[in-house]
Amino acid sequence: MSLAKKLTAEFLGTFWLVLGGCGSAVLAAHVVGADGYQFGIGYLGVALAFGLTVLTGAYAFGHISGGHFNPAVSFGLWAGGRFPARELVPYVAAQVVGGIAAGFILLQIAQGTGTFSPDPNAAGVFASNGYGAMSPGGYSVAAAFLTEVVLTAFFLIVIMGSTHGRAPTGFAPIAIGLALTLIHLISIPVTNTSVNPARSTGVALFAGPAAIGQLWLFWLAPILGGLIGGMLYGWLGRDRD
Amino acid sequence: MSLAKKLTAEFLGTFWLVLGGCGSAVLAAHVVGADGYQFGIGYLGVALAFGLTVLTGAYAFGHISGGHFNPAVSFGLWAGGRFPARELVPYVAAQVVGGIAAGFILLQIAQGTGTFSPDPNAAGVFASNGYGAMSPGGYSVAAAFLTEVVLTAFFLIVIMGSTHGRAPTGFAPIAIGLALTLIHLISIPVTNTSVNPARSTGVALFAGPAAIGQLWLFWLAPILGGLIGGMLYGWLGRDRD
Amino acid sequence: MSLAKKLTAEFLGTFWLVLGGCGSAVLAAHVVGADGYQFGIGYLGVALAFGLTVLTGAYAFGHISGGHFNPAVSFGLWAGGRFPARELVPYVAAQVVGGIAAGFILLQIAQGTGTFSPDPNAAGVFASNGYGAMSPGGYSVAAAFLTEVVLTAFFLIVIMGSTHGRAPTGFAPIAIGLALTLIHLISIPVTNTSVNPARSTGVALFAGPAAIGQLWLFWLAPILGGLIGGMLYGWLGRDRD
Amino acid sequence: MSLAKKLTAEFLGTFWLVLGGCGSAVLAAHVVGADGYQFGIGYLGVALAFGLTVLTGAYAFGHISGGHFNPAVSFGLWAGGRFPARELVPYVAAQVVGGIAAGFILLQIAQGTGTFSPDPNAAGVFASNGYGAMSPGGYSVAAAFLTEVVLTAFFLIVIMGSTHGRAPTGFAPIAIGLALTLIHLISIPVTNTSVNPARSTGVALFAGPAAIGQLWLFWLAPILGGLIGGMLYGWLGRDRD
Repeated sequence: MSLAKKLTAEFLGTFWLVLGGCGSAVLAAHVVGADGYQFGIGYLGVALAFGLTVLTGAYAFGHISGGHFNPAVSFGLWAGGRFPARELVPYVAAQVVGGIAAGFILLQIAQGTGTFSPDPNAAGVFASNGYGAMSPGGYSVAAAFLTEVVLTAFFLIVIMGSTHGRAPTGFAPIAIGLALTLIHLISIPVTNTSVNPARSTGVALFAGPAAIGQLWLFWLAPILGGLIGGMLYGWLGRDRD
Repeated sequence: MSLAKKLTAEFLGTFWLVLGGCGSAVLAAHVVGADGYQFGIGYLGVALAFGLTVLTGAYAFGHISGGHFNPAVSFGLWAGGRFPARELVPYVAAQVVGGIAAGFILLQIAQGTGTFSPDPNAAGVFASNGYGAMSPGGYSVAAAFLTEVVLTAFFLIVIMGSTHGRAPTGFAPIAIGLALTLIHLISIPVTNTSVNPARSTGVALFAGPAAIGQLWLFWLAPILGGLIGGMLYGWLGRDRD
Repeated sequence: MSLAKKLTAEFLGTFWLVLGGCGSAVLAAHVVGADGYQFGIGYLGVALAFGLTVLTGAYAFGHISGGHFNPAVSFGLWAGGRFPARELVPYVAAQVVGGIAAGFILLQIAQGTGTFSPDPNAAGVFASNGYGAMSPGGYSVAAAFLTEVVLTAFFLIVIMGSTHGRAPTGFAPIAIGLALTLIHLISIPVTNTSVNPARSTGVALFAGPAAIGQLWLFWLAPILGGLIGGMLYGWLGRDRD
Repeated sequence: MSLAKKLTAEFLGTFWLVLGGCGSAVLAAHVVGADGYQFGIGYLGVALAFGLTVLTGAYAFGHISGGHFNPAVSFGLWAGGRFPARELVPYVAAQVVGGIAAGFILLQIAQGTGTFSPDPNAAGVFASNGYGAMSPGGYSVAAAFLTEVVLTAFFLIVIMGSTHGRAPTGFAPIAIGLALTLIHLISIPVTNTSVNPARSTGVALFAGPAAIGQLWLFWLAPILGGLIGGMLYGWLGRDRD
């Protein structure tokens, strides 16, 4: 498979991840009917949506690019000996561009009500990630950092474990996608859940200066967690021990 | 397999899609108990129901007809080189008739409370699709068109990717069905989610003139999106590159 | 495999179906916290629970007994040429006994709050099925009958289709279990969803005379639907056409 | 595979189970927005989270350690003839330490709001299991014991059945994980659902003396249920009968 096709797959897959995950959060999480009842999908629906972008994207694109859709995954797989260093930069670039393109399209759709004017200082604005005042539940920067590191590390462990040669063939997209759902079920209140710098960047650029100013954490912590998880499973899954 | 059996499978599968997806929306989305609590399944449950009609239908009928249940899918697979032009018209006809039959049966059930009298000018009436005043969230025609094109394109990408020769065997119905769930998680507030002209037609005929008058968009946009997705993956998944 | 083990598997599987499906409805559907918020699983959670009893039961017992757990399924598979007539009566007996045993255990658990005193004339009491005044949404006997026939017919179609020799191997429990989830997503408001005479009987005996008096419909309609679905797919899936 | 790697896998898998299952309960079950609407994941989301920890953990670690993550599972598999007695004690120790480590990390995250001060006498405090006054729904010790025994027995039946040599290969993590989801859908109101002594211990130590004082039941009942289920399926699944 040519690198151009791999990068197209990573672009499209990350586009799908951000459009589906952040799109469900922005458009459908909170919908109140005329009679005052909530019909929206809530945190549970958003968690499911994020996971299904990866489950479906991995079945669609996995055989083309490996289906990372996430710089922390590419770094973690490199740390675990599963991904060549020379493809790291182009993969990450394609992912970030895909995320930003999805953020742009999502903004066009969201503005279609004619009344879309989100507060750039509200926690989770336009599905952005945040800590402190920008955390949905007001969690501190330390709690946010710890959460993102630990959850990304386990994400990489599930990715490397379920794609290991001795794991059952073909099931990895289910395990990996549903692991992302699980990660969101735990941590939306803490950071609005990133574990993915491309996802954070894709919406932060449209969410305003507060979200952009906190972007550093959602690059640093997920990549650090990815490296830890990749190296840990790299040892655990090695067959000669 | 004879064409008659293929068309029977497409009829039954589209019947199942409309009965299950639109049926859950009409009968179960909004149920308030005597104590004022919502017990209904909300947008999340409807999204799951639509996806499960395709997941289950594809396992049941996929080996007979390919399991399209959707004119946009048939067009998209044709554009991607996976479906012969000569079967397009009969497939689409069987799908539309199946959708209408399901709309009719659903109406008989819904009327069983003796108090069923939906407002034909309400957004989403009888699970119909709409834009502008008929959009659940009041989204413009442009936002509705963009949403239906983009989501149908990705639906086709997932369909063609997960049934590709190098994708793991047998998992495609899971990926495709859950892609439809994901699409609903994103876009029910925008258009009540079509991505399927047969589904739109099957209920619009019983939903009144406002829904029928907007049906053009739910033929045009999904089929356009299907063609784009089919052609895009047709290039991406070609093995000789 | 001996008939004794097959019947044990059908007993245990139907016990699991009624304990899990009806148990989630009785114990967990409606839970209001001290602050007035609903934490219960609602119709969506009950729909998921019913489906998961069959998904898990079919993986656990399918290779022993075929994993019917439902007289309508046994009748339907017989009509479709997949189950021998001589095992019909013992299978149905084991299923009904399993359902009643689960109803009994569930009653012991439910009474553990010390305040469990359900109204025998309330719709859906102790997860019972009903029509008219005993239908959760007040649906007529005709609507209830139609719903149970159509949904059981499609249940059999999914069962026979997903276990067909040309369907992908091993996925049938996912398709069948999630079909039961889908059926509940559609029809809990109509009849509290049966499609299974053993499930209806297992709780009706503990729900009071009103539920018992309506039990005839939840034997007749599901078995009729099962026969229709079994025969229809028997024709559709035959390979020599 | 060395015992050290097996125990590392059991440690990590149980850590993941407690962090994900109890973490989703503590952090995300109950989140009320500024406008008074519940966005939290409720019992349904927590049930899904517990199941997904096992589904994902079993795909990641199953080929290393078997993927027990639960003393009752290890005891049950031993009773069913699938696990050697000499590994029981080290497995259980690794599981308990993993559960406690997760409880500790979860506490650090939860305290990140600066306002976390749970009442040690509240039912379900810090996701702890309980009966009587510590049961979410006020269920008696007898109802709690019965529930934990029966549900753990069926958990083992699903585990042994879906990993049986005649069951389809590779699907067991789906069946087992979703069985744990189902178990939670039924029984969160009764005991906050244990079926796993390591999960109960991992959070009880941080939940206060009331939870610790009831820990005996969540060792005794799950292990008893596990032994019953393991022995029952040991007979049922034996091929020579």
